[in-house]
Amino acid sequence: MTLKKIIISPDSFKGTMSSIEVCSIIEQGIKNIFPDTEVIKIPIADGGEGTVDAFLTAIGGEKIKVKVKNPLFEEVEAFYGVLPDKETAVIEMAAASGLTLVEDRKNPLVATTYGTGQLILDALDRGCLKIIVGIGGSATNDGGIGMAAALGVRFLDEENKEVDLNGGGLENLERIDISGIDKRIKNCTIVAACDVDNPLFGPSGAAYIFGPQKGADERMVKMLDENLKNFAGIVGRDLGVDVQNIPGSGAAGGLGAGLVAFAGAKLQPGIKIVLDVVKYDEIISNADLVITGEGKIDGQSLRGKVPVGIAEKASKYDIPVIAIVGAVGDEAEKVYERGITSIFSTNLQPIPFEEAKICCRKNLLKTTESVMRLIKGTQGIK
Amino acid sequence: MTLKKIIISPDSFKGTMSSIEVCSIIEQGIKNIFPDTEVIKIPIADGGEGTVDAFLTAIGGEKIKVKVKNPLFEEVEAFYGVLPDKETAVIEMAAASGLTLVEDRKNPLVATTYGTGQLILDALDRGCLKIIVGIGGSATNDGGIGMAAALGVRFLDEENKEVDLNGGGLENLERIDISGIDKRIKNCTIVAACDVDNPLFGPSGAAYIFGPQKGADERMVKMLDENLKNFAGIVGRDLGVDVQNIPGSGAAGGLGAGLVAFAGAKLQPGIKIVLDVVKYDEIISNADLVITGEGKIDGQSLRGKVPVGIAEKASKYDIPVIAIVGAVGDEAEKVYERGITSIFSTNLQPIPFEEAKICCRKNLLKTTESVMRLIKGTQGIK
Repeated sequence: MTLKKIIISPDSFKGTMSSIEVCSIIEQGIKNIFPDTEVIKIPIADGGEGTVDAFLTAIGGEKIKVKVKNPLFEEVEAFYGVLPDKETAVIEMAAASGLTLVEDRKNPLVATTYGTGQLILDALDRGCLKIIVGIGGSATNDGGIGMAAALGVRFLDEENKEVDLNGGGLENLERIDISGIDKRIKNCTIVAACDVDNPLFGPSGAAYIFGPQKGADERMVKMLDENLKNFAGIVGRDLGVDVQNIPGSGAAGGLGAGLVAFAGAKLQPGIKIVLDVVKYDEIISNADLVITGEGKIDGQSLRGKVPVGIAEKASKYDIPVIAIVGAVGDEAEKVYERGITSIFSTNLQPIPFEEAKICCRKNLLKTTESVMRLIKGTQGIK
Repeated sequence: MTLKKIIISPDSFKGTMSSIEVCSIIEQGIKNIFPDTEVIKIPIADGGEGTVDAFLTAIGGEKIKVKVKNPLFEEVEAFYGVLPDKETAVIEMAAASGLTLVEDRKNPLVATTYGTGQLILDALDRGCLKIIVGIGGSATNDGGIGMAAALGVRFLDEENKEVDLNGGGLENLERIDISGIDKRIKNCTIVAACDVDNPLFGPSGAAYIFGPQKGADERMVKMLDENLKNFAGIVGRDLGVDVQNIPGSGAAGGLGAGLVAFAGAKLQPGIKIVLDVVKYDEIISNADLVITGEGKIDGQSLRGKVPVGIAEKASKYDIPVIAIVGAVGDEAEKVYERGITSIFSTNLQPIPFEEAKICCRKNLLKTTESVMRLIKGTQGIK
C-alpha cells in the first residue's frame, strides 16, 4: 500500500448533504479503491444543525440529552455533546432554539433562546470549562436575553418588572441586572461558532437579513430591528460592551451579541474552532492526502471558506489537497494559489440542480472513486 | 519531469466538438500543467465530416483539392488527404456528397455519390494503392451507383439506357455492366470507415433510418427503400454479391453496399482503421498515459466505441487510460474492466446540456487541468 492515511475534511454541500454525510460517502469511495488506507473523518461544523454530531464524528465524545424549553417555552428534549476531555461541551443552539422546532408556528417576536441557556447551564453542572456554542439555524431574534436569563441575568422594564424573554420583550427593556449571573460563567471559556459576520441591527443586521426566513413580515422586521437597537443601547450603557460592531453579533437573532455581552464569548468561524479542538495540525502532519469539499467553490472561497482553510493547513506539510465540489464557479482557479491541488465536480451529467441533487450521493461516490482510481492508476508514473 | 509522453485519442463529443478540437483542448490542458511533456494527438475519425483532417492531424500528409460534382451534380471544390506514405488516400464522402453541401435543397431521390467516385479516381491518378473512404454525413440514397459510375460502371434500364445516378434512378435499374470499371480498382485496397451497422434496405436500412434526416418524407422513404431492394437484387444477380446482409451496407445511403460490390471494399469502424494506419501499438508502447474521451460514456461504450477500443490497446502495455467525457451514463463503470483507469466528466456545474454546451470548451480545458494537477500533486505519494 502506498496511500497510508487520508484525511477527509469537507464543509456541508448546502441544500443536499451535511458534512458528516459527505465524509461517509467519500470514505466509502476511498475504501472501494484503497481498502487498507486509514481514513480520518473531520467533518467541518458551521454552527448550524449538525454541529454537535460533526464534532462527535471528528473527535468522539458523549451525547447528552436534556429537557429544556423550546423557542415557544414548551418542554422539549434537546442535546449537546461532551468531548473526550470531559471538559469541553459542544452545544448547537438549534437543538433547543432552532427554527425546525417551531415548524409552522414561526414568530421571532415570541421565540426565545432560553433553552440554549439551559443547555449551557447543564454543561456547567457537568463541570465543563469550555463551551462551544454553534449559533445557526435559530428561530429567535431576542438578542440572546432568553439564554442569559437562564444563566441568571435579569432584564427589566421601566417598572423594574422582567420583560418577556423574546424579540418582542426587548421593546420594553430599560435596564439589565447582571449581578445574579451564574458565577461559573466567568471561569468558562465560551466560543461561538458562526459563519456569518452580520452586525446586530440595521440593514445588514439580524432582523433585516434573517428575520423573513423566521416568519417576520416587513412590519415585524422593522419592529425587531428597533428592539435590537434598543437592546444594544442598554447593553452599551449597563455593561459597557459595544455589541453592534462585532462581526457576527447579528448571528442567530443576536445570540452572538448576547453571548459576547453576557458570557464573554468569542465569535469564530466554525472551521477555526473545529481545527483547534481536533488539533488538526497533529492529525494531518503524517497524512498522505487531504480531501475537502463544499457545495460550490469559486473566487468567494478565498474568504474564509472551508476548502481554503483546510488547504492552508495542509500546505504547511506539503500534503496534496483535493477539493470535491457540487459546482465549480467563476475564478475557482484562485484557490490553487492557496494550496488546493485539484478540483473535481460531482456533476457527471449535464442536468440542472433539481435533477442533480437526486443523484448527488451516487455521483459524489463515483467522483471520489474516479479520483482514487486515477491516483492508483498513475502511481507508477515516474 | 516524470510524465514524458502522453497520447490523446478521443472520439468527437457529438453535438459540441470534433475529435480534433477535443485533442487540441486536452493538449492545452496538459501543457498548462506539464509544459515539457511530449503530447501526441491521434483524434479518432468516425467516417463523417472531419475524417480527413483527423487522419492528417494524427499522422500528417497532404490535403488535395479537387473539383467534383456535388450531390446535385453541380461543380464544387472538394478535397481528400494523401498520407505521408504517398500511397494511402483518405477520402470523406461528405466532402463531395455530404448533406451540408445541399443545405435547404435536401432530396435523396436526386442526390448522387458521383463526386465521391471522382475523388477516388483522382486518388488513383495519383498512384494511391490504398484508399480509406469515410462514409458518414451523406446527402444520398443511391446505393453508391453515382460513385461506381464515375469509376466506369454502367447502370442500365430495360431499354439499355443509363438510369439517373441517384436514389430515384435505382427504380428503373435492370442491369449492371461492370466491364468498363477502372482497372486500377482491382489493385487498390479500399476500406470504408463507418460507425453504423445497418443493412441496405428494410426497417433498419438506409432509407428508413437515415432517409428522414436527408429530407425524405414517409412516401419518399418507402420509395427509396424499394429502390434499394431492387438494386440489391440486381447486384446479387449480376455481380454475385449479397450486399443486404453486410453490416454497414446501409451506411451513407447504401454507399457502403456500393463500395463492397463495385470496389471490393471492406467496411470497418473508424477507430480500427485509424489505429492500424497510425500504427498505434508502436506509438503508445512507450507512453506514460493515454487520454481518451467521448460525448457520453456508459454501458453501451463496450460495443466498439472509442474509449474502450483505446483502452484495450493501452492495457496491453499497462498504460493508464483516462476518459474525459461529456456525460457519465448508466453502467459506465463496466468500462473499468476493459482497461479504462478512471473517468472524469466535463460538467463543472449542475446545468442542462443547452447551457453546458456553451462552456464545453472551457470546462474540458479545466477538467483536463484538474486531472493533470492531481497527477502532478500526487506523484510524491509512495
